Amino acid sequence: MLKKLHLSTGKEGFYDVTNAVRHVLREYNVSSGICVVFCPHTTAGMTINEDADPDVTRDLMLAMGDTFHDRSDFRHAEGNSHAHWKSMMTGSSVTVIIDKGELVLGTWQGIYFVEYDGPRQRSYYVKIIEEI
Amino acid sequence: MLKKLHLSTGKEGFYDVTNAVRHVLREYNVSSGICVVFCPHTTAGMTINEDADPDVTRDLMLAMGDTFHDRSDFRHAEGNSHAHWKSMMTGSSVTVIIDKGELVLGTWQGIYFVEYDGPRQRSYYVKIIEEI
Amino acid sequence: MLKKLHLSTGKEGFYDVTNAVRHVLREYNVSSGICVVFCPHTTAGMTINEDADPDVTRDLMLAMGDTFHDRSDFRHAEGNSHAHWKSMMTGSSVTVIIDKGELVLGTWQGIYFVEYDGPRQRSYYVKIIEEI
Repeated sequence: MLKKLHLSTGKEGFYDVTNAVRHVLREYNVSSGICVVFCPHTTAGMTINEDADPDVTRDLMLAMGDTFHDRSDFRHAEGNSHAHWKSMMTGSSVTVIIDKGELVLGTWQGIYFVEYDGPRQRSYYVKIIEEI
Repeated sequence: MLKKLHLSTGKEGFYDVTNAVRHVLREYNVSSGICVVFCPHTTAGMTINEDADPDVTRDLMLAMGDTFHDRSDFRHAEGNSHAHWKSMMTGSSVTVIIDKGELVLGTWQGIYFVEYDGPRQRSYYVKIIEEI
Repeated sequence: MLKKLHLSTGKEGFYDVTNAVRHVLREYNVSSGICVVFCPHTTAGMTINEDADPDVTRDLMLAMGDTFHDRSDFRHAEGNSHAHWKSMMTGSSVTVIIDKGELVLGTWQGIYFVEYDGPRQRSYYVKIIEEI
């Protein structure tokens, strides 16, 4: 059970994909297992954080930008090494537990695709491993 | 095979849950597979690091606090955006291999629940996917 | 399906293990599932990032070293707390999707074992969970 999904991003930002992942779960009608949400890009990432107050992800992007900043001694000719760095710090995938047909997430948790070098046409994968 | 476990945390700290995870493994009598240890909170995380010298996690918490610090330009009204940031940097889950009925961990590795915004009553999940 | 692999590292560096992981995949002849690549060391980690221009990982190591630096107030007697910190920031494992017998990686992605405290003889594990 593998699904490739798509999104269009802005310059940078946290894109909440929780409902898109839930939709895949329902489509495959899986009761129990795990779900891997994977980002196939090297200047973006996947993370889980608060999805209630949008100021949280706004603060996170602000902090990421200042701490993992561009440097004059970076050599990568494309000039986006800081976006690769943020991608590494964020991680390329998240793994979420599936139980009773639902994602097991905390009250405040949402799954985010995080763009650090847009705007771009991006994709991500939802892979479900069902527990037999 | 899914287990929800609980712990009471202090203001901040690394809580070694390795033996608790091993206990779940034995309870379910799993020989081979993987184990996902998942934190359902957005101001805490899960990581793997040294569990021999307690000065290591003491140093890690010190370094995390200074680098991923609070900022006057954070907007999130609850005032704990730096804890959300540390949570994002730490990660929401770890995946550990199971072989011959044991967790496959290195000599110095332990699994930690990391609190960044306590004291709180916290929980975490241990999900086992058995290899058939 | 579990394989332990070995590598000799220098002082620090990104070691591309993508082809080694692919080799394990072919050896076991797996069509569909997930693959967990796990680092059993606490001063090294696993990550996924660009494997086209070697300047990217060179820039990443430079940035990691300056941001997650040694401190005079670290107490761990071995003197390598900054390497433990980089290990925590990098993560102990990556999870990659397997489809049609291949790793599902983006065009520019490679899997890296990252050394922060070498030179050492290191190992890592490739665990495959096949989808039935």
